[in-house]
Amino acid sequence: MAATFDLVVIGGTSLIGEAMLELLAESELPFGRLYVADSSDKAGRKVEFRERYLTVESVDSFDFGKVQLALFAGSEQLADEHAPRAAAAGCAVIDTSARFRESADVPLVVAEVNPEQLPAQPAGVIVASPSPAALALAAALRPLQQAAAIERVDAMICYPASAAGRAGVEELASQAAQLLNARSITPRVFPGQLAFNLLPQVGKALESGASIEEARVAAELGRLLRPVPAVSISALQVPVFYGITAIVHVQTAAELPVKRAQALLSQAPGVTVADPAEGAGYPTPVTDAAHHDKVFVGRLRTDATSSKGLNFCIVVDNVRKGAAINGIQLAELLMSSSR
Amino acid sequence: MAATFDLVVIGGTSLIGEAMLELLAESELPFGRLYVADSSDKAGRKVEFRERYLTVESVDSFDFGKVQLALFAGSEQLADEHAPRAAAAGCAVIDTSARFRESADVPLVVAEVNPEQLPAQPAGVIVASPSPAALALAAALRPLQQAAAIERVDAMICYPASAAGRAGVEELASQAAQLLNARSITPRVFPGQLAFNLLPQVGKALESGASIEEARVAAELGRLLRPVPAVSISALQVPVFYGITAIVHVQTAAELPVKRAQALLSQAPGVTVADPAEGAGYPTPVTDAAHHDKVFVGRLRTDATSSKGLNFCIVVDNVRKGAAINGIQLAELLMSSSR
Repeated sequence: MAATFDLVVIGGTSLIGEAMLELLAESELPFGRLYVADSSDKAGRKVEFRERYLTVESVDSFDFGKVQLALFAGSEQLADEHAPRAAAAGCAVIDTSARFRESADVPLVVAEVNPEQLPAQPAGVIVASPSPAALALAAALRPLQQAAAIERVDAMICYPASAAGRAGVEELASQAAQLLNARSITPRVFPGQLAFNLLPQVGKALESGASIEEARVAAELGRLLRPVPAVSISALQVPVFYGITAIVHVQTAAELPVKRAQALLSQAPGVTVADPAEGAGYPTPVTDAAHHDKVFVGRLRTDATSSKGLNFCIVVDNVRKGAAINGIQLAELLMSSSR
Repeated sequence: MAATFDLVVIGGTSLIGEAMLELLAESELPFGRLYVADSSDKAGRKVEFRERYLTVESVDSFDFGKVQLALFAGSEQLADEHAPRAAAAGCAVIDTSARFRESADVPLVVAEVNPEQLPAQPAGVIVASPSPAALALAAALRPLQQAAAIERVDAMICYPASAAGRAGVEELASQAAQLLNARSITPRVFPGQLAFNLLPQVGKALESGASIEEARVAAELGRLLRPVPAVSISALQVPVFYGITAIVHVQTAAELPVKRAQALLSQAPGVTVADPAEGAGYPTPVTDAAHHDKVFVGRLRTDATSSKGLNFCIVVDNVRKGAAINGIQLAELLMSSSR
C-alpha cells in the first residue's frame, strides 16, 4: 500500500461531506489523521466518524500544510476561496462543487469513465468531480460508445431537493407539511412552490434561453465523452428528496440493438441495469437512489421511430454515488498513483 | 342559436365530470334538461349545478332516447359499455376517455386544432377527445407547423396524480401525509410510492418497451398533426396533484427562429406563452395548470446544438383544459353544425 497521509474534509457538515465521512469510515484509503473543517459559522459542531465525534474546525484558519489530501464537499464559494490555498500548500485537492468543472486546466474526472485524466503526481493538483447528472450520464453513455458512435444526446434531468443541499431537503419537507395542513408557504431555497409541483427550470436562464444548470451539464459531458456528441439538456426541479432521474434519448451513427446495449451496460463498472422482469422493472429515486451506490439504468428500448435511436432512464443517488463516492474513488486513484 | 336539446353527463361524479358541470353552468350551450349519470355504485349521489343539486342516475338504466347529446367523462369501461348504445339511440356522443381514441372510424378532435374533422351532423356520431397530453402537444405544435415542417418530436411528459382520477389524488395526499409522519404506505392506485418519488413508466410496458401511455400519445399525435412527424414519447408519473408538464424538443426541416415561434404561439387559440420577463418566467403545474384554461408554453429556446431544433415546456390542467373544456367546445361545434 501507499504510505499513509493525513487528510481533511472541507464542507464536512454538508450532505456530501457527511456521506464522505461515512464512506471514509469503511474505506481502505491508508490515511492517518482526519480533520473536518467547514465555513466559520459551522465551526465547533461535532460530526460522527467511526463511533467517535470529531470537532469541525473553521476552514478560514485551517493549515493545509498539515495534510496531503483535501476533499472539498462544500459550496462553490468554499472551493473558490480555499482550494487554491490548499493546492499551493502542496495538498492534492478533490472538489465536488461546480467551481472548477469548467476550468480547462483542472481535470474533470469520473473514476469509472476517464481515470486516465488524473495527474500522475497528487501534490498540489486540483481535480474536479462532475455534477451528479453529468457523472451518471457519462457512466451510462461511455459503455455505449464502445459499440456505436453517439451522435446526439437529449436528456431531461429531474433534480431532487437535495441538489440544493440540506436546506433544499428541509424546504421540501416543510412545504409539504404546511400544504397538507392547508397553511400557506413562502419559498426561500427554490424560486417557487416545490412540494406537489415541479419547476421546469433549474438555475437562472442564460441569454440563449438555456439555464445555467443545463449549459453546465452539456459542457461537462463535452469534457467526459470522446468523441463528443451533440448534447441537449432540459433540467427540472421535482419534489423528490434524493435521487436524480434522467430520461435519455440517444441517437447513434449505427444501429445499436437493445440487447447489445444491455450487455454493455451490465458489464460497465458502477452501473446496474434494471431487469424488466423483476420488481417494478424500472428504477425510481426512492427504491434505487437513496443509499444504493450504483448508476441505475432502466427502460432500455429502441426508439419507436428510428432504429438508430435508444431510449432509457437513469436513476442515481446525487449525494453518494453522484458526488461523495466519486470523490473517494478519485482520492484512492490519485493517492496510489504517487507510489 | 341552435334549437335547444337535452343532454346527459356520463361519469358525472368523476373529476372530469365535475369540471364539465362547472363549465356547463357557465356555458352558452342552448341545452334544456341536464341529466347526470354514472356507474350504478355512484347512483343516488348529489352533484352541484347552478346552485342546485342533481341526483346521479345509474347509467345502466339510463334511456339515451330522451337526450340528444351525451358527454362521457368517465372510464374507458363506461364508454365501452354505453357509448355505442347512446349513439344507436341517435345521441351525439363526445367521449373524453381513451376508449375510442385509436378507432379509425371515430374522429379524434381538438376544437382548436382540427375542428374540420367533426361530422356535419351530430345525430348518432361518436367523437373522441384526445388524451390531455396529446391535446396540449397538438395545440402547441400545430401553430409551429404553419411556419416550418416538423420532422421529429421528442417529448417527456410528467403525469400528475389526477391523471388516475380522484383515487390518484387521494393516494398522493395520503401517502405524503403518512410518510411525513414516518408511517409506512401501501400503494394501491399507482404501482409504487408516488409521494416524494417519481415513477419513470406510466402504464404497462408493451413488447417494444414503450409503455401503453407512450404509444397512445404518439398514435394520437399521428392523428392530430398533418403532416405527421416522427414522435417519441417518454412518460413519467410525478408527485403533483394537477397539471401535466411536457418537456419538448422539436426538430424542424427549416430554421424556425424563437421569435417567430413565439409570435405564432401567441396568436394560437387556447395557447398562452409565458413571458420570461414576468414572474418566474415559466409555467408550473401549481401556478398555471389548476383552473387556468389555457395550454401554457414556456422556456422557448433554440437548441444549443442545432439551429433547426427548438426546446420548450408545456403545462396544462389535465382535467379542465385537457379534457372537460375540449369536451364542451366539441359539443358547441357539433350541436351548432346541425342548424
